[in-house]
Amino acid sequence: MVVNDPEVVAELAALYPRYEEALVTNDVPVLTEMFWASPLSIRLGAGENLYGEAEIEAFRLSRPAVGLARRQVRLEIRTFGKDYGSITLEFERDTLNGIVRGRQSQVWVRLDEGWRIVQAHVSILPRS
Amino acid sequence: MVVNDPEVVAELAALYPRYEEALVTNDVPVLTEMFWASPLSIRLGAGENLYGEAEIEAFRLSRPAVGLARRQVRLEIRTFGKDYGSITLEFERDTLNGIVRGRQSQVWVRLDEGWRIVQAHVSILPRS
Repeated sequence: MVVNDPEVVAELAALYPRYEEALVTNDVPVLTEMFWASPLSIRLGAGENLYGEAEIEAFRLSRPAVGLARRQVRLEIRTFGKDYGSITLEFERDTLNGIVRGRQSQVWVRLDEGWRIVQAHVSILPRS
Repeated sequence: MVVNDPEVVAELAALYPRYEEALVTNDVPVLTEMFWASPLSIRLGAGENLYGEAEIEAFRLSRPAVGLARRQVRLEIRTFGKDYGSITLEFERDTLNGIVRGRQSQVWVRLDEGWRIVQAHVSILPRS
């Protein structure tokens, strides 16, 4: 099991910015395309737990497209073999109540259809 | 890429209860053993972001061993091929202020030394 094969890390590093751009612009078709199209995909969001592509897409379509901008604070990519990856991001968002700090973790798998996010978890840190 | 091969799912289903038991009893040696012993392991906790085995173990050793009990509400296991898995858990914890709802996601990889958690993310849902 080769950890962080530079070629595999480079693949995910090239793919990730497309997700980030789609997220902050609320580009639902791209977000949906990058997630695993399966009833088995999972997205634990900042305020909701979603199971399967249908719940995930319904949430995205219903979410207001405002206040999604964020700064990337720390992005980490780990790969295992040729087909598995983990991407974590610490981010910050400016709000009327000050800076909100959050984290996002994603599980990436190279499926027959290409790299897809099969599980994601987003959360906001409590104010310290 | 075989998704949810029953034998692989069974392996993780057999391993997971050991982690849960170690967590609620604050058995730090077992928790440390089950995590990837690497500077590249990541644990985004309910209130802290930890990078590498040293930060993760230091946090566990400093944490008070009280109030760790929790109920498993929804456990989901996904596997990809023979060597990669995702385990998510919705849990509830009783506190003096009522029931707290949380989520835990873990990335499992079969390394040379066996199955290890290489990345984890724990968060508490905002009260609705």
